[in-house]
Amino acid sequence: MANKGWTGNFFEDFELGRRRRCAVPRRLTDGDVSAYIALTGDRTPGYCGGEPRVHPLITFHLVLGQTVRSISLNARANLGYADMRWGVPVVVGDTIRTEIEVVGLKENSSGTTGIAWVRTEALNQRDETVLSYTRWVMVKKRGSEATRWLEEPVVPTLPKAVAPESLSLASVEAMPSPEVSGAEWAFEDYEEGERIWHHDGMTVNPSDHMAFTRLFQNTAKVHFDALLTEGRPLVYGGVPVSVAYAQALNGLDNRVGIVGLNGGAHANPVHAGDTLYSFTEVVGKARTADPRVGALRLRMFAVKNEDPLAIERGGGFHPLEDDPRKPGRQRHRSSVVLDLDFWELMPTRAGLTGR
Amino acid sequence: MANKGWTGNFFEDFELGRRRRCAVPRRLTDGDVSAYIALTGDRTPGYCGGEPRVHPLITFHLVLGQTVRSISLNARANLGYADMRWGVPVVVGDTIRTEIEVVGLKENSSGTTGIAWVRTEALNQRDETVLSYTRWVMVKKRGSEATRWLEEPVVPTLPKAVAPESLSLASVEAMPSPEVSGAEWAFEDYEEGERIWHHDGMTVNPSDHMAFTRLFQNTAKVHFDALLTEGRPLVYGGVPVSVAYAQALNGLDNRVGIVGLNGGAHANPVHAGDTLYSFTEVVGKARTADPRVGALRLRMFAVKNEDPLAIERGGGFHPLEDDPRKPGRQRHRSSVVLDLDFWELMPTRAGLTGR
Amino acid sequence: MANKGWTGNFFEDFELGRRRRCAVPRRLTDGDVSAYIALTGDRTPGYCGGEPRVHPLITFHLVLGQTVRSISLNARANLGYADMRWGVPVVVGDTIRTEIEVVGLKENSSGTTGIAWVRTEALNQRDETVLSYTRWVMVKKRGSEATRWLEEPVVPTLPKAVAPESLSLASVEAMPSPEVSGAEWAFEDYEEGERIWHHDGMTVNPSDHMAFTRLFQNTAKVHFDALLTEGRPLVYGGVPVSVAYAQALNGLDNRVGIVGLNGGAHANPVHAGDTLYSFTEVVGKARTADPRVGALRLRMFAVKNEDPLAIERGGGFHPLEDDPRKPGRQRHRSSVVLDLDFWELMPTRAGLTGR
Repeated sequence: MANKGWTGNFFEDFELGRRRRCAVPRRLTDGDVSAYIALTGDRTPGYCGGEPRVHPLITFHLVLGQTVRSISLNARANLGYADMRWGVPVVVGDTIRTEIEVVGLKENSSGTTGIAWVRTEALNQRDETVLSYTRWVMVKKRGSEATRWLEEPVVPTLPKAVAPESLSLASVEAMPSPEVSGAEWAFEDYEEGERIWHHDGMTVNPSDHMAFTRLFQNTAKVHFDALLTEGRPLVYGGVPVSVAYAQALNGLDNRVGIVGLNGGAHANPVHAGDTLYSFTEVVGKARTADPRVGALRLRMFAVKNEDPLAIERGGGFHPLEDDPRKPGRQRHRSSVVLDLDFWELMPTRAGLTGR
Repeated sequence: MANKGWTGNFFEDFELGRRRRCAVPRRLTDGDVSAYIALTGDRTPGYCGGEPRVHPLITFHLVLGQTVRSISLNARANLGYADMRWGVPVVVGDTIRTEIEVVGLKENSSGTTGIAWVRTEALNQRDETVLSYTRWVMVKKRGSEATRWLEEPVVPTLPKAVAPESLSLASVEAMPSPEVSGAEWAFEDYEEGERIWHHDGMTVNPSDHMAFTRLFQNTAKVHFDALLTEGRPLVYGGVPVSVAYAQALNGLDNRVGIVGLNGGAHANPVHAGDTLYSFTEVVGKARTADPRVGALRLRMFAVKNEDPLAIERGGGFHPLEDDPRKPGRQRHRSSVVLDLDFWELMPTRAGLTGR
Repeated sequence: MANKGWTGNFFEDFELGRRRRCAVPRRLTDGDVSAYIALTGDRTPGYCGGEPRVHPLITFHLVLGQTVRSISLNARANLGYADMRWGVPVVVGDTIRTEIEVVGLKENSSGTTGIAWVRTEALNQRDETVLSYTRWVMVKKRGSEATRWLEEPVVPTLPKAVAPESLSLASVEAMPSPEVSGAEWAFEDYEEGERIWHHDGMTVNPSDHMAFTRLFQNTAKVHFDALLTEGRPLVYGGVPVSVAYAQALNGLDNRVGIVGLNGGAHANPVHAGDTLYSFTEVVGKARTADPRVGALRLRMFAVKNEDPLAIERGGGFHPLEDDPRKPGRQRHRSSVVLDLDFWELMPTRAGLTGR
């Protein structure tokens, strides 16, 4: 009798155009909100006081976790995200499920892997979309026979960035007052090209990252099994996202929450024992239809085991450097673990003062 | 003035036939549900989405924890469980208390220990039984004088297994649909003798097991004190139960939840740093009074620091082996840490398809 | 453009008499109650069963955490607390904010630091006071120029102890029955001078203390950054407070909860890997206006890496010893990490028996 334990889809198993539900829907609760704070230290005002709202990154990790068993148990690499938008805000008590559709397939010339593009949509119990994005991953092939996607790849056209006018403004309700946030900075105070140093370091302990990953029911083996990984389980890439985002409140104190993600790279691996620092660059600004908030396009970097501000003071911290193996190309500095490009809603001065 | 700090009952303190309440009743909340997921990664559908139900193993650990200070602060060994049955399902907000009655006593010939059999019943705030079982433990004697239980031991007759017809079917409400669970396997698909390999490894970190044990207010010293244990606190035996059970969803995806426990052995100790794997054998099947669910009798093994499936492929994984010290007897393989025999409700095909 | 990341107030930034709100208000939930139990093992009856009350030490840590960014990011030392009183009980769902007022300033003769006395008041969403105290900290100066507080220091007069008649009795509702607590000890059973040995040791793991500190959104760097601290992050002083308090239920089983804090010393640092033990001395008793409860003045000691009871049995455990560097002065024994002087409400015999 064949073993009933699932070992995941291989490249050959992905069917173009097929929409499927991922197991298992999850009710998000005050327990998850509290665990998220205990694991990251996040203090974003709209998600820790007053109304029982769920932090947009909780939704992000949950949805990613729900797709693991359908998409990435046999993944070789997590290649990218595009067009990620948060929709209807999630509140405590909502049950979230995720649906996926394969929108692109391309076998690699190696013959051992392929790339799958997966459109992902997460919905609440009222079938409202709470998060949607396209992600692409490199997945192992089961066999050596070539698939039709070697000769006839289907590669979707994806936006390089989320258009600011397509961002949902529903989360504006999570906007703090300066009295609550402790800071006066408004949308108008941020300038393109500005760097914000967040001044905090956080060492990742084994239980911290495993508990975080389990909280979101992400079952990818490499994060949990010290035997399989020769004593060095790989930290789930979402951990530096949330740790850096929590640190980044310092200097972005009035933020309403992430609403769109343009793209991102898990540039280098993180392991237990690494200490994470972060800084953010303002790379764009856009007005929105709501005069109370503007959209800041931010590029947030997480850095391991060296304080980027100390290096900045010593001559400049450069997250990208020339790649000696590929003349004319750049790569991330070896300490950079995350380079995330996203849209954040930020209250305008009018919004902050209530006028 | 005598110290008011309690050091626990000794064998001489157990009174046959006396029923007592254990301190302290506990209200189970969404926080506990979330913490349980963060510590185990459990994804059993009926206990993480939709209705605010409490996982049956949360109740199990809580009740065990509540009995520690009455029964096992001076225990030498946890010898067994019998006739364990879950009753009225626990939902978020219930307050659970535990009552115990000593139903058997036997002093050991060593003169230093005795065995106490304790009937245990856990109730909710409406005095409905949520869990009941008999457990027996070896407890240290306070003094050297023989008790009457040396010459006149009282040993209760206990069932070798819970009769399937005595299992509560109340938890059938936690039954998933295949859309929710992501799998089609029904009761009819499982065969006696079948082994299910769960394909996951989980390394136990110091904070993981201590937080788990504290969550259930289990205060047994050996789990927390590195000084007392020469740097190696013993992992609470419930940790491998819950880790293996969480892993075991893979291949038992539609399970409704554990409803009866026939017996079990904590075969070898677990310490922080150990990596746990698991597999399950189907050892029995029974129809129930509800055509939507059948009862699967399962034997779940947790194994440390070697992947049982790799060994199976290399010639067969045998959880029991001849005991060289006791000719003709068997013992557990040194890597086996848990051998648990229990009843699980599993939807029938009719139940899954709603016909 | 100046960096928007906040690096904290220096001594020169404190303004006498100015009242400010601290960022960020926090809604306390069942998730926090559960996390607190998982991190400490606390079993105080009124805060884990029945009504959804919030443990008074959860409020304490939250308020301390809320003040960190205003007061102590540049603190050199946490010098003391005075006149700390809990007010209206906090229940699950309350949102707590903290307001501070500088009530004293004194520059030190070194010219590099000063002392700030800060009156602190925490309020719920109905503007009721839930906790208030005065704390004083040594804070770094930004510059070398002397401030007016060198020549004209303002030092508030603080009570040496909270007057028992000023303690709030509102938490009497959290009083257990002996059936619930498992113990019969009443207020009348405690004698001045009595020592209670709690019989438990708890080793602090890295994730334990960091998760605890993050849960309360305390962002002081030294607790989280292994690089900054040469591999030895300092455990937040609140961790031994809560671990010892949890252990101290053993022998104080019927306690209603801490209601006033007279003072305390974090006598020696704690690091991950340290094992904490504790004992309590009864140093005072007072009747209250409610015949159901009396007030016990307790002095609770937390001790690292040696069991104080073993030393007591070997000749006496002395938490204070002569300071060889300061003839005629005493200092804490090097293993003593906490010396906390507080008021605890304890049911009287009449209260326990309901007569």
